[in-house]
Parts: sequence; C-alpha cells; structure tokens
Amino acid sequence: MTHDAALAGLKTLLGNRLVTSDADRALHGQNETWFPNTPPEAVAYPETTQEVAQIVALCNTHRCPVTAYGAASSLEGQHLAARGGISLDMNRMNRVLDVRAEDLNAVVQPGITRIALNEDLRTTGLFFPVDPGADASIGGMAATRASGTTAVRYGTMRENILALEAVMADGTVIRTGSDARKSSTGYDLTHLLIGSEGTLGIITELTLRLQGIPEAMSAATCRFATVEDAVNCVILTIQSGLPMARIELLDEVMVRGFNLYSDAGLPELPHLFLEFHGSPAAVAEQAEAFGDIAADFGADAFRTATTTEDRNALWAMRHNAHYASGALGKGKRIMATDVCVPISKLAKAVTQAQSDAQRLGLTAPIVGHVGDGNFHCGVSVDPNDPDEKARVETFTGALAETALRLGGTVSGEHGIGLGKMKYMTAEHGPALPIMRAIKAALDPNDILNPGKMLPPGNQ
Amino acid sequence: MTHDAALAGLKTLLGNRLVTSDADRALHGQNETWFPNTPPEAVAYPETTQEVAQIVALCNTHRCPVTAYGAASSLEGQHLAARGGISLDMNRMNRVLDVRAEDLNAVVQPGITRIALNEDLRTTGLFFPVDPGADASIGGMAATRASGTTAVRYGTMRENILALEAVMADGTVIRTGSDARKSSTGYDLTHLLIGSEGTLGIITELTLRLQGIPEAMSAATCRFATVEDAVNCVILTIQSGLPMARIELLDEVMVRGFNLYSDAGLPELPHLFLEFHGSPAAVAEQAEAFGDIAADFGADAFRTATTTEDRNALWAMRHNAHYASGALGKGKRIMATDVCVPISKLAKAVTQAQSDAQRLGLTAPIVGHVGDGNFHCGVSVDPNDPDEKARVETFTGALAETALRLGGTVSGEHGIGLGKMKYMTAEHGPALPIMRAIKAALDPNDILNPGKMLPPGNQ
Repeated sequence: MTHDAALAGLKTLLGNRLVTSDADRALHGQNETWFPNTPPEAVAYPETTQEVAQIVALCNTHRCPVTAYGAASSLEGQHLAARGGISLDMNRMNRVLDVRAEDLNAVVQPGITRIALNEDLRTTGLFFPVDPGADASIGGMAATRASGTTAVRYGTMRENILALEAVMADGTVIRTGSDARKSSTGYDLTHLLIGSEGTLGIITELTLRLQGIPEAMSAATCRFATVEDAVNCVILTIQSGLPMARIELLDEVMVRGFNLYSDAGLPELPHLFLEFHGSPAAVAEQAEAFGDIAADFGADAFRTATTTEDRNALWAMRHNAHYASGALGKGKRIMATDVCVPISKLAKAVTQAQSDAQRLGLTAPIVGHVGDGNFHCGVSVDPNDPDEKARVETFTGALAETALRLGGTVSGEHGIGLGKMKYMTAEHGPALPIMRAIKAALDPNDILNPGKMLPPGNQ
Repeated sequence: MTHDAALAGLKTLLGNRLVTSDADRALHGQNETWFPNTPPEAVAYPETTQEVAQIVALCNTHRCPVTAYGAASSLEGQHLAARGGISLDMNRMNRVLDVRAEDLNAVVQPGITRIALNEDLRTTGLFFPVDPGADASIGGMAATRASGTTAVRYGTMRENILALEAVMADGTVIRTGSDARKSSTGYDLTHLLIGSEGTLGIITELTLRLQGIPEAMSAATCRFATVEDAVNCVILTIQSGLPMARIELLDEVMVRGFNLYSDAGLPELPHLFLEFHGSPAAVAEQAEAFGDIAADFGADAFRTATTTEDRNALWAMRHNAHYASGALGKGKRIMATDVCVPISKLAKAVTQAQSDAQRLGLTAPIVGHVGDGNFHCGVSVDPNDPDEKARVETFTGALAETALRLGGTVSGEHGIGLGKMKYMTAEHGPALPIMRAIKAALDPNDILNPGKMLPPGNQ
C-alpha cells in the first residue's frame, strides 16, 4: 500500500523537507541490530510542534503511517517504518528551550541527544542523569522508557520527566504534567506516553528533572572468581542501601570482548564496574562499605579511578559493549537483548543465560545494570546462517521465559518494538486487551508506529 | 435511579456482606471535609479479588455504580457514592501477602492502612515511606496518588509501586508491572491506575517498594521572622541537593492552631519542621549544612529532637494539622485544599494565599510539604453561612488560579474527586478529551466511581 495522497500533501506542506531519495530512505531504514533495512516511503523533517501537528493530522486523514525517528539507536526496531508511510525525523527539533536551574529542570525538544544536552548544561552545575550508553535522542529515550548505567541511583526516564508536550493521532497538541514536582490531578498521561514507543502520540517537548553534579565522584573496578560471587556481591550491596551511582556486571565473555575491542588488558574473569557520587566524605564512606562487602565475596584487584580521565576511559569502554560484542563475532550482526528480574533472582537468571548460550553453542557476552536486576546479552548471529538464527531465537525465547518465570520482565530498557511483540501475551495476559483498547481509543486509524509493541489480536 | 436488580444479585453473591442498613450507609457517606453526607444504596464487603471481580461484573451488567471505599480519609470526596450504587468497602482485604526483604518489596491488599503495614514490617528493618498524615488505606493512597511529608526524599505513591492487580470495569482481573524494578514492555498501566481515583479499575493488590529503616534519624524545628524567609530557606536547601527526609512549613496561623489543639507552646511565627535520615555521620552533616542555610535566612531557635519519643511527638503534632485547623474555627467544617507549584514560585504562591485569605476575611492556616512545592490550606467554613461559603469558594478558586499561573497544579496530593473537577479544563485543556477517551474505552458504561475527576463534557 502506498500513500501518494499523503505524500503529495506533505510535499506541499514541507517542500524540500519531505525527502524521498533512496539514500535518505535507506539511511532511515538502518538499525544497530539484526533487523533488515526497512526504508520508509519518505522522510519528513519538521521544525516546529505546529508542523508535527499538521503532518500527523494530514497522515491521519490519509491513513498514512507515521514513525518517529531520533538517533536510530533503538535496539528492537522501534524507529523502523514497518508498515511504510513516513519516517518523522525529529533531529531538527533539537534545542534546549529553557533551563530553570532554580527548579532543577529543563525544557528540551525531543531531537536533542543526551550528550548534547549535558554539554549545554555544563555551566549550570546540573546534569541529566539517564545514561543508556548510546548517544540517544531524549525523545527516543522517553518513548522507549530508556534507562542505563545510572538508573540504580537516579531512576529511569520514567522517574526523570515532569511534563510532556505531544501531538496525538488527530493532530491535537496536548500538554501533560506540570512544572511542579508532583500532581494528583487527572490520569497520568505523562507516564502513558513514556514507553509507548510512538504508538500513542509524538513527543514534541519534554520537561526533564535535572540533578546537581555531585561534589565528588569516584569509579572502581574489581573482579571475582565466579559470576555468582559478583552477582551476590551486588545483591547484598543493594540490600544494604548503599546509594550506588553505577554498578555494572561484565561476565568473562564480555571481558574478552573488551580486551579485543578496547585493548582493556583485563583478566578474563567476571568484573564489576562501579561509581560513587556524593560529598568527598560520603564517596569515601561508600567505597569503603562496598569494599567490605566485596571482600566477603572474594573480590580481587579492587582499583579506584578518581581522575575524570580515568573515569571517562572506564565508562567509554563500558559504553562500547555493543561494539565489543561485535568484536567477539567478526562479520556477524549483534542481536542485543535484555531482561530484568527481581534482584534476588539475578544470579539464577545470569547463570541460566550463560548455560543456555553454552548449550546452544552461541557467543552471548553478558553486561548489565545489575543494581536494577537488568542485564543484556549481545548474541553474535550470522543472518545468512539459518541454523544459527534458529539457535539465537531459541536462546532469546529461553531468556524471556526465564525472566518471566522469576517474576521479571522481558525487557528492562530496550522495549518491545518489532523484536519482542511475541512475548507480550506471556508477560501481560489479560492486560494486553486493555492496552489494545487504549491504542484503539487514542489512534483509531492505527497510524502511529503501526505494527509495533501490540501483537495482532482481537480488540 | 435505583439499582434493584444489581442489589438483588449482590445479595445472592455476598449474603450478609451486602449491607443496606441506614447506619452503615450513612457511615459510608461521611467525609472529613465539607461535602454533605452522601450514603450509597448499599455497602459490599468483598474478601477476595475473585469476589471483587464478580461484584464489578454484576454491577457492569446492571449499570450500577461502584465506588471503592478504604479509610475514608480522602479530602475531595473520592470515596463518596456520588451517583448512588454501591460502596465497595475494601477493609476486609487488608493483609500483607508477602514481604520480600531481599528485594525490598512487599505485596499487600488494598485495605491495609499505612500504619498497620509499617507495624507488620517492624521486624524486617524495612518500612513503607509514603506518609500522608492520615492513616489512609494503601489502596486509597494509590488510587489518589497520595504523598505526604516524606515525598521530598522517597517520592510519592507514583514512585513507590512496582506492580498492581486490578479489576477492570467488565470484571477482568489484570496484573500490571512486574516484580522487577523497571520494565519497558507495554503501556504503563500501573501509572495509569495510580491516581485514577477508582474511575478506571479497582485495585485489589499492590507490590510496594520498601526502604531500609535509616541507621540514624533526627528531627528539628526552627522559626523565622517571615514566611518568605522560611520558604526561601527551603528553596535554597532543595537547590543545594540536601537529601532532606522531611521539610514542612507551618505559617503563623497554623502555629496558633497547634498551640490551641496540641498545647504546643510555640511562638506564633512561621516554623519549619525537619527530619534527616542516614548514617549517623550523614545525619550530622545534613543538619549542620541545613543549619548554615537557615542561619542565612535569620532562623531562630533551631532545636533538634533525636529521641524516638521527641520525634514522634513532633510528627504527631504535625499530623494533627487537620484537627488543629478545626481548633481555629470552632464549630465549623474544614475545607482542606492543596496546590503544588515549582519550588522557585513557592514564596509567591504562599504569600498570595495568605493575602487572599486576609482580604476575604477567612481563617486559612498554611501547612505544607514545601520541599515539593506543595502546601495546604485548611479553611474554616460554616456550611450554614452562604456568605462565608462563597468567600471560601472565591479563595480556593484564586488559589487554583495562582498555582496554574505559576506553572503548577491544582492539587499536589489530594486529587480531584468531586471538589476540583471545575479546574480540570483550566489545568489540562486539550488533554482532557484524551482522558475522557481513555475512560470511555475502559469503562464504557461509566460504572466506576462515576461523576468524579472528569467534568461533564463531550467525548
């Protein structure tokens, strides 16, 4: 199905900011993971909320799909125009509109990336803490309910957005939330939109909570004989209420990837990467308390990094985990998957994943935000090898099943997109028809990122 | 309109747990504030989720309104059966089903109150931090998105619920969220139900986040020459990132009420009541840092309370603010209202409220969770004095208008219920039809707490 009438109307509206070249379409069909290139019919580059509203209203009239596009760093195909229509490229709406240092918040457009935002904030003494690794767009991070290395301390996108402006399916512009830190008036549309993956509305403005840059920060690494020791150390640390700023697990396979990609020179044993934030005294107290716990689990080579350079080098290495996974499977694609379980079940989930990978003959390094019970596997897969593809499918299915059996969720932060729709019934059961009813009520023509999140089924 | 067929069916289902006596109906029609007694047609006392599902399904078939009832401490009439039908009294579903200390969470039924829950948790070293003052039911606190004195540190109900079980309008039982600390799968139905005031579903089970009881706690009081000084001290404290556990403002009128009701013997000047949580060293460090800030604003009589008895006495006094407001207006009712503004606008909002009260000749003590920008006025009103009633209406309208003009919300924690529907259009504008569309999709027969939250209007 093509959408000529919609595209003609959009051309009139946007002129040369509606692009139909093969190159631009192919670019917008790319993804970081294993989905085939999925070009949209056209790419629209709005510059204002008003334009987004006009575009969406026009597409609604002509039943033309609209899929929002930011930094294209989503890992479950959320930004791909799976049912054709237009890619709504938000990158021209990338300004910081207001920084209200006295209220610890900022108003931004969705196309700004988290690194650009923090550059902009640098002189204020404040920062936006959510850090998914990739330099994702803030709009995309909101739409996928992203989190990352610092969620254990500062929360996910869910906890760090005060208010939104969004364009709904008929082109109506709404504002959700307020500039106050809390409210009990009306349905929580802010949280309904966060994590809705562009299927309920297009986010056009965000009011974000900011944090004061801590007076002191120090990072550390240590290694363990077994992944159980490392994970049990994490569990006790969290249970003790230590306000860790970051606590990341790397299993021995992931460490090998870091050695290959970043020349890390680390012994191929499970590691924890840590960060402490606070006053100088608090940071020292936390590091000492953590060291005591870690020692009980036989931690070795506890090293701290207090200079900014050393810390940055450590987290740059961590943030390249996706590419380090790639280094383990030269010439292959990386199927990046994540799950999240209650912290008490973390050791069980991680060791189950390791043994599943071994049994299936797969390279599946594990790295994770283990303070939240969240971990990732970056499985190497040759898209031209049907047998390996089938084994990867078996692995990810087993991982999802493990997470659900242990009371967890099939995704802690990557979301559903195209890749995980098949688990929605198992995870949500009778709540899934409620989600479908909301989708049908708010987007009756199914134009907003159709074919994502909600698997086909009866309304 | 009566609902005889529904009541007959419920009688068959529940036997003597469907009560139609005048006494019980009148009891369920009471409220803490100024709404007239509004008895339901009958009171149902379910004991299981399955029974709630059967009751709601039956009421849906017969178009009989269902209004959930917990501790009846709501302040905007949320628990009143405004359109008749049944009061669904959840007090028999009041058990702690599971405490998972290792995951810092607990599974509870909605009828348990916050004090009973914390009694139950006492031996675990954990507590549930949300503290609205009243001994509210946890289900009611979730349904109204309650918060209270500790939200500045631990968040509101919004941040402290991991998962819910709920009965939807057709009797379907759903589960939202998971036992994991975060998830990015599907629409956030947990947050959609939190704050929906029983209009979208009946909460039948909650998985709550718990906190470790701090190693050390100390409370303090201090007083200021003017309310601006007190508020500006709060603003700087929050901006400094001090992790206050509680920071409460009492204006001079409220202090007079405390002196009358609790024999507090305090000078009639604006006060702050504070609490610090952490390690002994951290608590000392925080108290000292706060003391430095307070001194800059001329704080006087900085007194600490470190024994449990002294702290408890302080907060018992604070929690009696509603009754202390009553002591200021003998024989009158208290119209308890609240708003929330960005912290930078707090002094402006508080002084505006004071001058409005003075201009209108009203007694309107101010007490508030000022670390969140949230404050309350407990206005004395004689329901038999139409002139005073009109002036109170003018006052609350002006307060709501002030909050919205300053970027805030017409309620930080009391919610909408019956009392604040008239401000929903001003606060939410084009988002209100979106809320109506969700309500219509999930409760097409409008049986769940009808006549609340969403003002009449076109779908």
